[in-house]
Amino acid sequence: MMRIALIGTGNLAIHLVHALEKCNAVELVQWIGRNETPPKQIPNTPYFTRYQQNIDVDLCLISVTDDAISSVAQQLKESDVLVAHTAGAVSMGELKTLKRKGVFYPLQSFKETIPVDWSTVPICIEATNSEDLELLTKLASQLSENVHQIYESQRLQLHTAAVFVNNFCNHLLGISQNIAADASLPFSVLQPLIQETFERSFSNQAFAIQTGPAKRNDTLTQQKHLSVLSEKHAALYRILSQSIFNTHNT
Amino acid sequence: MMRIALIGTGNLAIHLVHALEKCNAVELVQWIGRNETPPKQIPNTPYFTRYQQNIDVDLCLISVTDDAISSVAQQLKESDVLVAHTAGAVSMGELKTLKRKGVFYPLQSFKETIPVDWSTVPICIEATNSEDLELLTKLASQLSENVHQIYESQRLQLHTAAVFVNNFCNHLLGISQNIAADASLPFSVLQPLIQETFERSFSNQAFAIQTGPAKRNDTLTQQKHLSVLSEKHAALYRILSQSIFNTHNT
Repeated sequence: MMRIALIGTGNLAIHLVHALEKCNAVELVQWIGRNETPPKQIPNTPYFTRYQQNIDVDLCLISVTDDAISSVAQQLKESDVLVAHTAGAVSMGELKTLKRKGVFYPLQSFKETIPVDWSTVPICIEATNSEDLELLTKLASQLSENVHQIYESQRLQLHTAAVFVNNFCNHLLGISQNIAADASLPFSVLQPLIQETFERSFSNQAFAIQTGPAKRNDTLTQQKHLSVLSEKHAALYRILSQSIFNTHNT
Repeated sequence: MMRIALIGTGNLAIHLVHALEKCNAVELVQWIGRNETPPKQIPNTPYFTRYQQNIDVDLCLISVTDDAISSVAQQLKESDVLVAHTAGAVSMGELKTLKRKGVFYPLQSFKETIPVDWSTVPICIEATNSEDLELLTKLASQLSENVHQIYESQRLQLHTAAVFVNNFCNHLLGISQNIAADASLPFSVLQPLIQETFERSFSNQAFAIQTGPAKRNDTLTQQKHLSVLSEKHAALYRILSQSIFNTHNT
């Protein structure tokens, strides 16, 4: 049985608590947050406001905001326990005061209210020695069928790519929801197109299947589109169109 | 049996020929293109280089590039046949010389080499009189379970929204493919995140579930991301991040 401590109470931390609670080969023996009471009462999960030196653990996961990782890690500097943070864009070097360190980065967007199928979540792991890597792999494999051992530089690139496909695409989806609402049309009309767009990228080079007025420099159609957009969305339309045009014509 | 003529040999036209050939209640009696030979030999589909006045049809679909629609329509100006174009951003007014006119706009991205499941493609129709609307509805319902009668202004808004979800998101997916390739990582690592991103937009307001460094103005993380991007993609990153920040903080 792998004994785990988890520090943090944010979106990812809460999803991790739930996921770890369901793992047969894992026992979450410490859940640690700043507040006196946990954000959610989860049965069988002992909650503390500090890391408990007297409760043995094999692994401590730090799942707090990026800029708090280093200071949170300080309370574990005397420990022999493997400590891993869960952030995509934070160097393992932030844990430098610790004896054993690693990274356990689940590549997914976590919102507390939206369930996640952990079995498909890519978990990217990193550690300085092979035993620790093995421990992280063991835990990751309990949660997911999609485990990757990657380098720090790759993790930052992956996190950056994730911003494009998740944060930026989500923003564009939001804008198109607004346009559909302005037109008194249900967003579901666009659903098949959205599904096709994203699914095609799984088996094609997206640049190779680019279509639309920006690629073919169809300024007449672009003018029509701009006429129905608010000023700020028109600005974004122009810049994205220019980027597409440049990609395919320079 | 509905008798149809189709003018055009582009991506959408070829998909339409294949789809119409499969419809039991429809007969494609004329397929018309500029070239002496069709771009694809399709059995049982008579191909011509001009519209044939002597072959009776109930409906003529014009599926050519936007700026050719008006001139192509000229060759039908003496006809009593209902003529509909298939474009998202072209006014029905472009067919003004015709007696009976309409629009038959399938909202999907068509590439000749990529199969399309027509049963889910939203088909947006428009006509000036109810009989013609009925005829277009009848044809659309033969192809798809997703038929919408919409106004011209709505169609332009929809086409604009489609640019955001298809053209622009595809471009961002392409950039993230490049980043993953630079990191020597398979793009499939990002697949669960991509799937989650677009599926969430079907049941949530995308703006309400926005996450990431741009929304929370986490400039430290943004600097790290910018450090791994090429100059042109960094420029796009900054502008999209600013747009997200403005949406959520003004």
